[in-house]
Amino acid sequence: MILEPIGWVRSSRTDAIDDDWDAVAATISLDAAQFTSDAVAGLDEFSHIEVVFVFDQVEPADIESGARHPRGNTQWPAVGIFAQRAKMRPNRIGVSVCRLLEVDGLVLRVAGLDAIDGTPVLDIKPYMSEFGARGDVRQPDWSHELMTGYWSNPARGT
Amino acid sequence: MILEPIGWVRSSRTDAIDDDWDAVAATISLDAAQFTSDAVAGLDEFSHIEVVFVFDQVEPADIESGARHPRGNTQWPAVGIFAQRAKMRPNRIGVSVCRLLEVDGLVLRVAGLDAIDGTPVLDIKPYMSEFGARGDVRQPDWSHELMTGYWSNPARGT
Repeated sequence: MILEPIGWVRSSRTDAIDDDWDAVAATISLDAAQFTSDAVAGLDEFSHIEVVFVFDQVEPADIESGARHPRGNTQWPAVGIFAQRAKMRPNRIGVSVCRLLEVDGLVLRVAGLDAIDGTPVLDIKPYMSEFGARGDVRQPDWSHELMTGYWSNPARGT
Repeated sequence: MILEPIGWVRSSRTDAIDDDWDAVAATISLDAAQFTSDAVAGLDEFSHIEVVFVFDQVEPADIESGARHPRGNTQWPAVGIFAQRAKMRPNRIGVSVCRLLEVDGLVLRVAGLDAIDGTPVLDIKPYMSEFGARGDVRQPDWSHELMTGYWSNPARGT
């Protein structure tokens, strides 16, 4: 499958730091060689978008296809790469829901996007509540612990 | 970007029908040439998974890069391809959250997956509530109308 980026992330974060993503300001610039503003007509009616991107800074040799401790933390169980959201995964795809603050031509200003500067974007979808998880969500304790400081840093009071 | 399927959908639905996806039984079979059951160790601790797949039955010539009426319905506004979730989109990527019923070796039995038989899968992620939409969700009326019968058919009482 040969895929082409539809755009790129521009972000105040240039290194792949794990946590505190709400502190990051970001835009997504769609490729002007492929698209006009028609491609995002009406998108501003949505509060959130779903962004599909590529962790392109992960070296192919570092991709994990078995099990590992999330973040290398041995306090947490070794789980399969498809039971965690680590970036060193087959096909290196990330998916994130973020807030859409503004659509300015081909530039989308967003909040809460956990992708670093230069990240290639493969797709943007409007977030519809009907596509959220339906029914009760169950997840292991380690995943809640891992996410504690992901968006903001409770220790800093943000 | 060259991506390889990590597995394939096996589904009771073989045609791309728009609605009534909860009536469909499906499994995802991971590629035994690439993975062992280590890749999904611990996945059964999660009630839901996020599946990234390819609408591979869409002909490249049919891909829309501008605006169109969702489902061709002129009662709804013509909106950009990135303001709708139609399958004829650049890179033809679909993302869906579905319930995980059972993990049996490399076969995942799921419910509520809106992908037809034979669909190539690019990634599977555990669904964590922290990755849901944060803050109030706003979306246009047409999107609610479009989703009315998507998962089940109210007219049939399902």
